[in-house]
Amino acid sequence: MPRTNALSTDFRFEVHARCDDTRARTGTFHTPHGAVPTPAFMPVGTKATVKGLTPRQLRDTGTGFVLGNTYHLHLRPGEEAIRELGGLHRFMGWDGPILTDSGGFQVFSLAHLTRVREEGAELRSVVDGTVVRLTPETVVDIQRDLGADVIMAFDHCASDPLDREQVERATDRTHRWLERCVRRFDERDPVHGPQALFGIVQGGAFEDLRKRSVEAVCAHDLVGYAIGGVSVGEHEEAIEMAVEAATPLLPEDRPRYLMGVGTPRDFFRAVRAGVDMFDCVTPTRHGRNHQVYTSKGRMNVRNAAWARDDRPLDEDCSCEVCATFGRAYLRHLCHSGEILAGVLLSLHNVHFFQHLMQRMRDAIRAGTFNALASDYLERLQTKAPMDGSV
Amino acid sequence: MPRTNALSTDFRFEVHARCDDTRARTGTFHTPHGAVPTPAFMPVGTKATVKGLTPRQLRDTGTGFVLGNTYHLHLRPGEEAIRELGGLHRFMGWDGPILTDSGGFQVFSLAHLTRVREEGAELRSVVDGTVVRLTPETVVDIQRDLGADVIMAFDHCASDPLDREQVERATDRTHRWLERCVRRFDERDPVHGPQALFGIVQGGAFEDLRKRSVEAVCAHDLVGYAIGGVSVGEHEEAIEMAVEAATPLLPEDRPRYLMGVGTPRDFFRAVRAGVDMFDCVTPTRHGRNHQVYTSKGRMNVRNAAWARDDRPLDEDCSCEVCATFGRAYLRHLCHSGEILAGVLLSLHNVHFFQHLMQRMRDAIRAGTFNALASDYLERLQTKAPMDGSV
Repeated sequence: MPRTNALSTDFRFEVHARCDDTRARTGTFHTPHGAVPTPAFMPVGTKATVKGLTPRQLRDTGTGFVLGNTYHLHLRPGEEAIRELGGLHRFMGWDGPILTDSGGFQVFSLAHLTRVREEGAELRSVVDGTVVRLTPETVVDIQRDLGADVIMAFDHCASDPLDREQVERATDRTHRWLERCVRRFDERDPVHGPQALFGIVQGGAFEDLRKRSVEAVCAHDLVGYAIGGVSVGEHEEAIEMAVEAATPLLPEDRPRYLMGVGTPRDFFRAVRAGVDMFDCVTPTRHGRNHQVYTSKGRMNVRNAAWARDDRPLDEDCSCEVCATFGRAYLRHLCHSGEILAGVLLSLHNVHFFQHLMQRMRDAIRAGTFNALASDYLERLQTKAPMDGSV
Repeated sequence: MPRTNALSTDFRFEVHARCDDTRARTGTFHTPHGAVPTPAFMPVGTKATVKGLTPRQLRDTGTGFVLGNTYHLHLRPGEEAIRELGGLHRFMGWDGPILTDSGGFQVFSLAHLTRVREEGAELRSVVDGTVVRLTPETVVDIQRDLGADVIMAFDHCASDPLDREQVERATDRTHRWLERCVRRFDERDPVHGPQALFGIVQGGAFEDLRKRSVEAVCAHDLVGYAIGGVSVGEHEEAIEMAVEAATPLLPEDRPRYLMGVGTPRDFFRAVRAGVDMFDCVTPTRHGRNHQVYTSKGRMNVRNAAWARDDRPLDEDCSCEVCATFGRAYLRHLCHSGEILAGVLLSLHNVHFFQHLMQRMRDAIRAGTFNALASDYLERLQTKAPMDGSV
């Protein structure tokens, strides 16, 4: 049995309940750093920090997995430093599970700084302009040094998901790169402790390519599978197609991770289709930009409407921020350019996302997921936007 | 009995222990928002936030009093907004005691934007350039609206503490302004709850003027007395003279507050002379600039020496930061420009200051203050600076 096999004492995935009339499910993903209930949202800690939040604050939001970025950590402080310092968990003071991406998305998003060939990708460092070479092998090696619980295969996202020829080339390359990642993963012992490798499905905006990619990726018996090549700001229809094409073909007994998504609306659609894990920068990035999520929609905290308003951001929210501060104060922090504005609004947003996941898990268990989803999506559609909503 | 009298059920000051061979004392200052052990350090929350720290984090450092700035809060969000929102405690989510300064220091530090006359001071707003008028009466009114437990009289710091004629004029004016503050304070009912007014001693660099000022200020029976006109970066000798001239003449049964000071070294000297309260921006400002205080001296966290060092900032420190993170990680956050760097280093520094105060209180009680002081000051003087110390 190859090391990459899913069923081990270190990594187990149990499905506890399914929704009768959708593919939604709730379960537990067991890792060496703890068990995470699914559907799960993973805040993004690009440079080994979820921007502005301490590990304690993060834990209080209900966060299980935290995501780190291989490309950024490779540039600074470098995987050697982190290996020597005991691995990413110890380095960033997070004793819960960590997932590192592979840098494939950075190759895509920094396309103007990148050259991709069969061997791998060359990027210009955003830190000092030097050339960084990422190959399936180096990406596995770096992630071994970092020591996250879940590490991602190196994938190639086509720069234009609508250009069929380009997508087909990138998707086929992703499959060949996965083979190389699996081989490297099996050859090299972990540095810090057991790790699981996830493969990534590509296929751009083409349903048949998406299905073909699921087949190729699932030829490898992996702990989990990710749907890649969809990202923040993507059209909802494109995300939905990618998810709907993949989930029916992905194995029932493995976690499914939709990369880089997204918003509450996206979560409902993807969970309904059977997705278990999400990551996105939205809660922290929007928090720093003074935008928050509430049960009534998004809200611009800078808005003049809140100048004398002492209600919490969200009257249905139980986070520390909503329990302590009124809108007028938070608006004051935003207008005063205070660090604490970004910290508190990020904290609220991450809590909001985690609480939403918990509501989804509860609803799936109770057989009321569809009702929750329609109620939630309808509310977002029909409610007049709040003053200052974006 | 005038309202400004110190001895009331709302404000009490008890001295528990004195040091035999110095004037150091430890006590408790009781306020409507709780009792604070003295000597006490008050972190500065200029714009109704101690930069980067949540009230919970602040409480965990052992902070009792927090300081807010009348001038800044008058400009934004304005005292009317804060009054309407229930006062400063509720606004900023801090249920411990608060002290607001009077704006006198801003008149001094923004001297290029200021004109001072007998009636009061005119400043240009740092927010929008409009003219702001502060008089002893408006300063009391603003602080009534803000609702801090302790409010400060409006004082005039001479712009050059070495120009005797100028200092004499400013000090005499401070005394006339104090009369007007006391009158206004007694005329106006508090808006949110009981408040105490502190007077401020001036006198620049002149011992006789300092003593004369103590006499004039202590002619008013106030809850507490402050020593003003010394500030961050001032020569140690100037601070020592101002303190030594004042404390023997200040009433034994009232708290004494040395404004805007300072560093651990300053604290030892001032406590030895009988000072009970301090405020300073150093721990948060230095934290944001990646400098920390440790039991071995100051340390520059950006220094290359820490790149692979997983020891805590201070091996003798019990704060959350030192319990969780190594120097290499904190250095990484600094170099990556992460918000969390400033947050964590401020948190450590405020904890360090509060812990130092606690050690002083314990030592005064145990009769070992002199030993603690010599040990501490000697260590700072004789230890070779740590790599990266400033």
